[in-house]
Amino acid sequence: MATTENSPVIENLHHSSSSLWSNCRPDIQRRINALLNYQVEYFRLRVEFHRQLQDLQYAYNPEFERIIERQRSIIDGSCEPKELEKLINQSSIAQINNQQTANVQRKGLENFWLKVLKNIDSYDYPIQRRDELCLKYLSDIRCTLNPPDVETSSFTLEFHFLPTNPFFIETILTKQYRIRFESNNINPYRSYDGPEVDCCYGSIITWKPDHNLTIRKRTKRIRNKITGQVRFECIEEPVKSFFEFFSSPTIPTNGIHEMTNEDQIRLEADIEFGLLLKQRVLPRAVLYYTGEALRVFNDEEEDDDDESTSSDSSR
Amino acid sequence: MATTENSPVIENLHHSSSSLWSNCRPDIQRRINALLNYQVEYFRLRVEFHRQLQDLQYAYNPEFERIIERQRSIIDGSCEPKELEKLINQSSIAQINNQQTANVQRKGLENFWLKVLKNIDSYDYPIQRRDELCLKYLSDIRCTLNPPDVETSSFTLEFHFLPTNPFFIETILTKQYRIRFESNNINPYRSYDGPEVDCCYGSIITWKPDHNLTIRKRTKRIRNKITGQVRFECIEEPVKSFFEFFSSPTIPTNGIHEMTNEDQIRLEADIEFGLLLKQRVLPRAVLYYTGEALRVFNDEEEDDDDESTSSDSSR
Repeated sequence: MATTENSPVIENLHHSSSSLWSNCRPDIQRRINALLNYQVEYFRLRVEFHRQLQDLQYAYNPEFERIIERQRSIIDGSCEPKELEKLINQSSIAQINNQQTANVQRKGLENFWLKVLKNIDSYDYPIQRRDELCLKYLSDIRCTLNPPDVETSSFTLEFHFLPTNPFFIETILTKQYRIRFESNNINPYRSYDGPEVDCCYGSIITWKPDHNLTIRKRTKRIRNKITGQVRFECIEEPVKSFFEFFSSPTIPTNGIHEMTNEDQIRLEADIEFGLLLKQRVLPRAVLYYTGEALRVFNDEEEDDDDESTSSDSSR
Repeated sequence: MATTENSPVIENLHHSSSSLWSNCRPDIQRRINALLNYQVEYFRLRVEFHRQLQDLQYAYNPEFERIIERQRSIIDGSCEPKELEKLINQSSIAQINNQQTANVQRKGLENFWLKVLKNIDSYDYPIQRRDELCLKYLSDIRCTLNPPDVETSSFTLEFHFLPTNPFFIETILTKQYRIRFESNNINPYRSYDGPEVDCCYGSIITWKPDHNLTIRKRTKRIRNKITGQVRFECIEEPVKSFFEFFSSPTIPTNGIHEMTNEDQIRLEADIEFGLLLKQRVLPRAVLYYTGEALRVFNDEEEDDDDESTSSDSSR
C-alpha cells in the first residue's frame, strides 16, 4: 500500500493537476494524491484485463472465422446451400421453369460486397459511380487479427479483388490498424478507456494507365495572351473516390500533434471507418447486403458498441 | 453445415424479411437464407463469447475491488496515507502551523461522494439543493457484481449512508440491474450487440416524517364558493429530486411495450445513469471528485465506451 501511495507518480500528479486543488489543506492534498495513485494502479489493472480480453478474442477468432469461411463459400459460389442442390436435382418440380433453372446455375451472389459497401452509407467514404465499376470486382473483405503482444495488437482489413479487375494490378488491397494497450504514460492518471487504435497504414495501389479512380484528367484550353494562340493541356485533378481510403495520412515521428488539422480529421475518419467495418459490418455482412442491418442499426443508433452497453462489469 | 443451412430458422427468416428480397430469383433467396442462418450461428457464438467475457470480468473483480477498498479507507478516514502520517509526526516542520495540524486530524475526505455526484452533472438526475442536505450523509457508493449464470447476470449499486442521516431509516439504498445475454429469440437474425441491461429495481426509501425529499408540502387556501369562508388544506406535491432514481418504473409481465411512453423513457434514463455510475464514475471516482474526469470526458466524448473503440477484435 505504501508503495503506491508514495510512488513518484504523486509528484507528477501534484504538478499536473495542481491548479485543481492547490488551494486545499495539505492533509486533503495528500489524501487526494494517495487516491490518484490508486487510480493509476486501477488503470494499470485495466490494461492487464484488456490484454486478457484480447487473448480471449484471439482464441475465439478461429471459431468466428469458420462461420465466415462458410458464408464466403456461398457468396463466391464455390459452395451451394444443400437445400438448393436438392432442389436443382428435382428437375421435375413444376415451379422451376427453364429460365429459373438456368439462373440457378449462376454461382454465388453477384456484387455482394459492392452492395454491402453501398448499404453502409458512409459519410466519409461514399461509393462514387466510377468506384462501382471497379468494386464489381471486389470478391471479399476480410479482417485478420494479428497475434497480440504485450504492447500492441493489430488487425488488417483485406479487400480481395478478382484478377480480371482492369483498374489496378494488386488483387488484395490492405489496410492495417495498430491497437495500443497503454494509455498516455506522460499523464498516467488520465482516464483509461481501454485499448485504442492509434494509427493505420493503407497499401499502395498500382493503377493501370488511365484507370486511376482518384484523379480525373481534364483538357484545359490555354490562350497565349500575346499571340492569341490557343493550345490544349491535359491536367490531372483529384476527385472524390472510395479508394482514397487506402491512402491514409502518415503520422510524423513527433506524434499526431504535428499533423495538419485536415490530416488529423482524415486519420480519425479512417480509424472510425476501419472499426465500423471490423466490428459492425463484416460480422453482419449479409444483413448489410439485404439492407436489414441498416434498419436495425438506425433503430438502436445509441448502443452500437459491443461491450460498453453493459457487459463491462469489471470495476 | 447442412444442419445450419436447413434449420427451421430458414423459414422464419424468409417470412420475417420477405419484403426485402421476396422478388429475388429462388436460387439467390436460398443463398441468402443460408447466409442468414450462418449469421444466427455467428450471433450464438457471440453470446458464448460474451459469457466468457463476463467470467473474465468476474474473475478480475476482486483485484479491482482490492484497489477500491484502499481508496475507500482513505475517503472515509479509516486509514491515512503513509506519507501524511510521517508528515504529522514531524511536528517541527514549519509549514504546518497549528491551524493546519488541527485540520490534518480531521479524518478522510468530507462530502466526497456528494462532490462526485455533483460533478457528474447528470441531465436526468441532477442534485437538487434539498438533496444535498441528505447526500452529505452519503459515505460510499459501491457496485457489487452478482455471479453470472448462463442466462443472466446482474449488478447492484449500493448507496451507503451514515446512520446519523436524519432523512430516512435505511443505511443502504440499492438499485439492482439485470443483464440479459441472449438477443431476442423471436427474431434470431436481429443484430446481436452483446448483453444488455433490460430492467432494474430500486429499493424502497422509508422517509422520516416531514423529511421526504421527493415531495413538497404546501398549504392551499380554499374559499367556499357559497359561504365565502376560507380554510387551509395541506397538500403534498411531487418535486424533482435525485432520490427519484430509486423508484424505477416496474416492467409489466407482458413486456416493456406495455409500458407508457413516459415510463419507457424513465427506464432508459435509469439504465443509462446506472451504467454511467458503474462503468465510468465509480472506477474513476477521485477524478470526478477533483473535476479532472469531467474535463477528460468532455475532450473525448465520442469514445467513452470501453470495448467498442477498438478492442472487440472477435469477429
